Amino acid sequence: MKALARGCAILGTGGGGDVRTGALAATLAIRKYGPVPLITLDELEDDALVVPLSGIGAPTVSHEMPHGEDEPRRIVEEIERIFGRRPRAIMSSEIGGANGVAPVAWAAQLGLPLLDADGMGRAFPEVQMVSMYVAGLPANLVVMSDVVGNVITLKPVDGLWSERLARAVCVASGSTALMADYVLTAAEARGAVIEGTVTRALAIGAATDLEGALGAKRLITGKLTDVERHTTGGFVRGTAAIEGTGADRGRTLTLELQNENLVALENGQVRAIVPDLITVIDTETETAIQTEGLRYGQRVTVLAWPCDPLWRTPKGLETAGPKAFGYDFAYVPVEELHG
Amino acid sequence: MKALARGCAILGTGGGGDVRTGALAATLAIRKYGPVPLITLDELEDDALVVPLSGIGAPTVSHEMPHGEDEPRRIVEEIERIFGRRPRAIMSSEIGGANGVAPVAWAAQLGLPLLDADGMGRAFPEVQMVSMYVAGLPANLVVMSDVVGNVITLKPVDGLWSERLARAVCVASGSTALMADYVLTAAEARGAVIEGTVTRALAIGAATDLEGALGAKRLITGKLTDVERHTTGGFVRGTAAIEGTGADRGRTLTLELQNENLVALENGQVRAIVPDLITVIDTETETAIQTEGLRYGQRVTVLAWPCDPLWRTPKGLETAGPKAFGYDFAYVPVEELHG
Repeated sequence: MKALARGCAILGTGGGGDVRTGALAATLAIRKYGPVPLITLDELEDDALVVPLSGIGAPTVSHEMPHGEDEPRRIVEEIERIFGRRPRAIMSSEIGGANGVAPVAWAAQLGLPLLDADGMGRAFPEVQMVSMYVAGLPANLVVMSDVVGNVITLKPVDGLWSERLARAVCVASGSTALMADYVLTAAEARGAVIEGTVTRALAIGAATDLEGALGAKRLITGKLTDVERHTTGGFVRGTAAIEGTGADRGRTLTLELQNENLVALENGQVRAIVPDLITVIDTETETAIQTEGLRYGQRVTVLAWPCDPLWRTPKGLETAGPKAFGYDFAYVPVEELHG
Repeated sequence: MKALARGCAILGTGGGGDVRTGALAATLAIRKYGPVPLITLDELEDDALVVPLSGIGAPTVSHEMPHGEDEPRRIVEEIERIFGRRPRAIMSSEIGGANGVAPVAWAAQLGLPLLDADGMGRAFPEVQMVSMYVAGLPANLVVMSDVVGNVITLKPVDGLWSERLARAVCVASGSTALMADYVLTAAEARGAVIEGTVTRALAIGAATDLEGALGAKRLITGKLTDVERHTTGGFVRGTAAIEGTGADRGRTLTLELQNENLVALENGQVRAIVPDLITVIDTETETAIQTEGLRYGQRVTVLAWPCDPLWRTPKGLETAGPKAFGYDFAYVPVEELHG
């Protein structure tokens, strides 16, 4: 769990919820219900149902109000009613942050295996920003539940309406809810999910050479000097500035945040940009710092590395590239920016 | 249709949506699909499913964007999937305003009869303000659809969550949606709906002696001198002042609005208050004027009359009495205020 938590936090690029809450829930659930088998897509029959689960909402809220045991159960029961058969596996919709760790707890509680895959290979702030959407699967079912006990089923006309309606429900439920999006059969999942990401998170979490394990470029090592952040409409938005120290003295890197770290700028020039991954780590402990954990004076290192190839396709960039977040910058792969 | 439209507008107490849009839709639907049988609860077997339908949203929006034919079909299909059998009748959730008239169109399109009953006996602005809630039926299913084609199913923990979630979905869908709330069997409906209200709306609409047909008190006849109104969070709120003319010269009546006319005040004293009915009618034509149709200079008469007895029970007043709308005034029945 420790390695998974560290790895998911790093893949969270500042978002996806605090891994500590998820790791604690997972540890308790495993103690109570027993270990969770990690399975690959190959082990499932074509018509086996896979339920991608994730928390939705502002991380600042979900951090303080973790999901109970009842939400995954209510969601899976509702899906069983709709499909007339019991789901065979849980999948993380988002390997980055708490949404990468907490599915271990949900799988343990439900007595279901966890699929070694996710829908992002990282964290993203919006519901439609998943590989299933990029792969062209219809966004025709969302099942949500909240701590109060409400169960909400959306049959949206497309992924953008899925995001719009789910976000509205989430805000009405106190800015946090649990959600199953793109319930899919194993046959539909092949080619539409990013495989092996739980294993990858574990490897990253256990790595001593972090830059090597990630294939990352170190953008700066320095001190956090300016953090501006606010929660609005279910999102955390803001900026953070890092002044270089040591060999990086004299340089300043600025990060643009929207739940996740989306753009790294230096002298107005893009140094890394979404969908590539940008993570702020504590220079000494080499653990990731979430956007809402950024504080003046922290000694940090900023790493950036390439996203999964699907995010670099035209549909991938349209879904989660700079323009999808309202930025005018063109996307240039991080490895090209740093030759 | 003309009598039904006039009657529903009067029972709308200023809200429930513009009857003209609903009446036009009903006339066209009857022409296309044939007449709609009006049935009583006695004609249905105990396990026959009744679907209470209504539009939800700010009347200023729904007036400009009437519901299409697809929304009732999508909702009834979803209910059929959930219950495993086809609904046997449509009911108006709210006899007041367009929501009293439009169900004729929806019933015609669906080939289902219309139940001679509703859930309010008037119009109210919030989802939980229905007789089924007052009767203690669980608010455990809401099915919504919008012009875009989204279908949303809510299983809320109670009526207040039903309102909160449905309102959030409605605002996300552009402040207008069609909704089935409290899908119920005929057995559950007995004692939990207000029977005979379609017939009553028709009688009011055909009446020449309007005050007599309503059992109403005339509060004032005069001229609209001040109207303040704004749309916020899916609601129209505001106030309207009427200066008396003729025998009422020298008097001023002020109305407090929240989609419906909720309170009539004179010199700071309550002259009529929700859940009793307060309607502004054009003095000459004796047709009701909706809150969003109120204009400076209109010659109007304000009528007030007693609500259905269920709204005067403790649960009824808690649900839709003055306090439910944020007013500090105590409820006094309109007939007691006017001896």
